[in-house]
Amino acid sequence: MGGDVGLKVTVPASIRFLKDHSDASLVLVGDSAALDAELTGIDPALRQRIRVQHASQVVDMDEAPQLALKNKKDSSMRVAINLVKSGEAQAAVSAGNTGALMATARFVLKTIPGIDRPAIAKLMPSVKGTTCMLDLGANVDSSPEQLLQFGIMGSELVSCLQQRSNPTVGLLNIGSEDIKGTESIKRAAELLRGSELNFYGNVEGNDVYKGTVDVVVCDGFVGNVALKSAEGLAYMIAAFLREELMRSWWTRLCALAAMPVLRHFKNRVDTRRYNGASFLGLRGIVVKSHGGTDELGFRYALEQAREEVRSNVIGHIADRVAHQLQNLKRSEAEAN
Amino acid sequence: MGGDVGLKVTVPASIRFLKDHSDASLVLVGDSAALDAELTGIDPALRQRIRVQHASQVVDMDEAPQLALKNKKDSSMRVAINLVKSGEAQAAVSAGNTGALMATARFVLKTIPGIDRPAIAKLMPSVKGTTCMLDLGANVDSSPEQLLQFGIMGSELVSCLQQRSNPTVGLLNIGSEDIKGTESIKRAAELLRGSELNFYGNVEGNDVYKGTVDVVVCDGFVGNVALKSAEGLAYMIAAFLREELMRSWWTRLCALAAMPVLRHFKNRVDTRRYNGASFLGLRGIVVKSHGGTDELGFRYALEQAREEVRSNVIGHIADRVAHQLQNLKRSEAEAN
Repeated sequence: MGGDVGLKVTVPASIRFLKDHSDASLVLVGDSAALDAELTGIDPALRQRIRVQHASQVVDMDEAPQLALKNKKDSSMRVAINLVKSGEAQAAVSAGNTGALMATARFVLKTIPGIDRPAIAKLMPSVKGTTCMLDLGANVDSSPEQLLQFGIMGSELVSCLQQRSNPTVGLLNIGSEDIKGTESIKRAAELLRGSELNFYGNVEGNDVYKGTVDVVVCDGFVGNVALKSAEGLAYMIAAFLREELMRSWWTRLCALAAMPVLRHFKNRVDTRRYNGASFLGLRGIVVKSHGGTDELGFRYALEQAREEVRSNVIGHIADRVAHQLQNLKRSEAEAN
Repeated sequence: MGGDVGLKVTVPASIRFLKDHSDASLVLVGDSAALDAELTGIDPALRQRIRVQHASQVVDMDEAPQLALKNKKDSSMRVAINLVKSGEAQAAVSAGNTGALMATARFVLKTIPGIDRPAIAKLMPSVKGTTCMLDLGANVDSSPEQLLQFGIMGSELVSCLQQRSNPTVGLLNIGSEDIKGTESIKRAAELLRGSELNFYGNVEGNDVYKGTVDVVVCDGFVGNVALKSAEGLAYMIAAFLREELMRSWWTRLCALAAMPVLRHFKNRVDTRRYNGASFLGLRGIVVKSHGGTDELGFRYALEQAREEVRSNVIGHIADRVAHQLQNLKRSEAEAN
C-alpha cells in the first residue's frame, strides 16, 4: 500500500517479478478489495503464486513512527512483518514510511544477538561499481561499538550479494588522518582496526563515489545527510542539463543528435537501479523501497530482498557477530 | 605558496585580478625570489600595485595544524594573516592547508566577541541560485549555541554579498519534522526559532541544491561530509558522461554535435565559479581557495575576499552578534 503512488506501482512490479522468477511466490498485504481489483485479468498461472492478505489499516507517509506502532496494529506493513516473524514469508518489502517501517520491524522481529540497533544500508553507485553505505538514518549519535557492528553487517552484506570475500571497510570521517573527527569516531576506528574486518581506515565523503572501499560506515545522521545531499545535487545537475538541451531549437537538435549517448548515460546514473535499502541487524529481512519510485525501481527492491534470502545474509551476520563476541570475551579473559 | 600547483596558479590569478580591479593592490606573501621570478616581465603599472613580502617557511598541505602553528611562525600563511591583523591588508586569501590556515587565523586574529568558534562557509550552487552552507569542517560536535552563531554569520554573509535582506535560514536535519534529529539539533532549532533570524525550520540534504533556504546551518562534521559526498558524486557523473561520449566514433560524433550545449552545461556546473570558502567569525577576513583549483578558480576566491571587504561583512556580523547578546541579557533580566 506504501509509496507515493501505491498499488499502481507495487502490483505491476510484483507481477513482473513473478514472471522473472518462476521459483518465487508473493503475499500482497493490504486492502484486499483494492488488491483483488488490481489483480483482475492477470495470467492464472501467476495468480496462483500470489496470496492476498488483508490488512485493514495503512500507515501514512508522514505518520510518527511511535504512533503508527501503537495505533496501527493491523497496518499493511505490520502484517507483512508479522509474516516474516512467523516464517510464512522470507522477506518483507515496503515503499512506505521509513521510520514507521523501521520501528515496526525492530519491535516485531527484534535484533540479532550482539547487535544493539539495526541500520539502513544501501548499495551506492561508484566509478568502480558499487559502495555499500550504512547507516543511512536509522540511528543518530551512534556509539563506537555500534559503528563496529555496522561494519560487520555491511561487510557480510557485500560478501553475500557480490561474492566479494573480505570486503574493505572504511570509516566516514572529515579527513583521512587518524587525528581527525570526534572522540567517538576515533574510538570506532580503534575498534574497527582491532576487529577481524578488512579495515581500510578513514575515508571521506567523496570516497563513496570513488569506490575507495567496499563498505562505508557512518552514523545515521551523517549518512542520511550525505545521501540526500547527493540526491539533491544529482537532481540539480539533471535539471541544468535538461534546461541547456531545451534552450533553443538548435540545442534541441543537438540533443536529438546526442540522444543515444544521453540515453545510455541516463540509464547508467538511473537511481531506480540502486533502489532497495536493507534494514540490517534484524532477525528477518526487510527491504525499503524509495517512496517515489516507479515499477522498475520497486522491482529492484524486490530483487534486493530475493538476493538477501538466497544468500542467507542474516545467517552470515549472526555467525560473524557471534564470532566477534566470542573473540571479545576471550581477549577480556586473557586481559584478566 | 599554497595549493597543489602554487605560484603558477596564484600569481597569474593575482595579475588578472589587478587588471579587473583598478582600485585593488596585492601583497604576495612567500618566497620572494620565487615570487620575483614569477613576476618578471609584467606591466610596470600593475607591478606598482604588487608588494612582495618574504616569508621563509611554507606549511605543507598535509602538515598537522598544531605543529604548523608552533613551528612555522614565518610561514607564508602566518605572515599573510599577520598583515590582516596589523591592518596592512584587508583580507588574506590562501590555497594552502585548510586546518593550518584555520588554526593560524584563529590564533592570530581571534574571534568576534560573542562568537565561540569560527566556521567555514561557502556559497553552493542551487537550482534557484546559491545556498550559503556552514560549517563545512572547522568544528566537530557543534553546540546548539554555536549553531545559532553560524546562523547569524551565514545570514549576514548572504545579506552582504547578495543584498538579500533577512535571508531565510534552515537547520540541516534528517527530516523536516521537529521531532527528528539529536537533542543538540532540537535545542538549536529552539534557539534559532527564538532568535531574530528568519528561521525556516529543519531542512534536509537535498534542500541545499533545491535552494529551499538562503542559509543552511550544520555541524562541521556533517557539512564536510555532505560537501565532499556531493563533490564525489559530481565527479562520478562527469566521468560517466565522458565515458559515454567517448565510447565509439559514433558517440564522439554525437558529442561533437552537442558540444555547444555541453560546454554551456559544463560552465554552469563549473566548481571553479563557486571557489572561495569564507572563514567567518574572526576579526579579519580570510578566504580559503580549493587547493586543486586553477587560475580561474583562484580568481573567484580573490573576488570573494574583495566582496567581503567591500560590504563590510565583519562589521555586520559583529553588530548582529552584539545585538543578539543584548537581547539575551534583556530576556534573562526579564526572566529574573
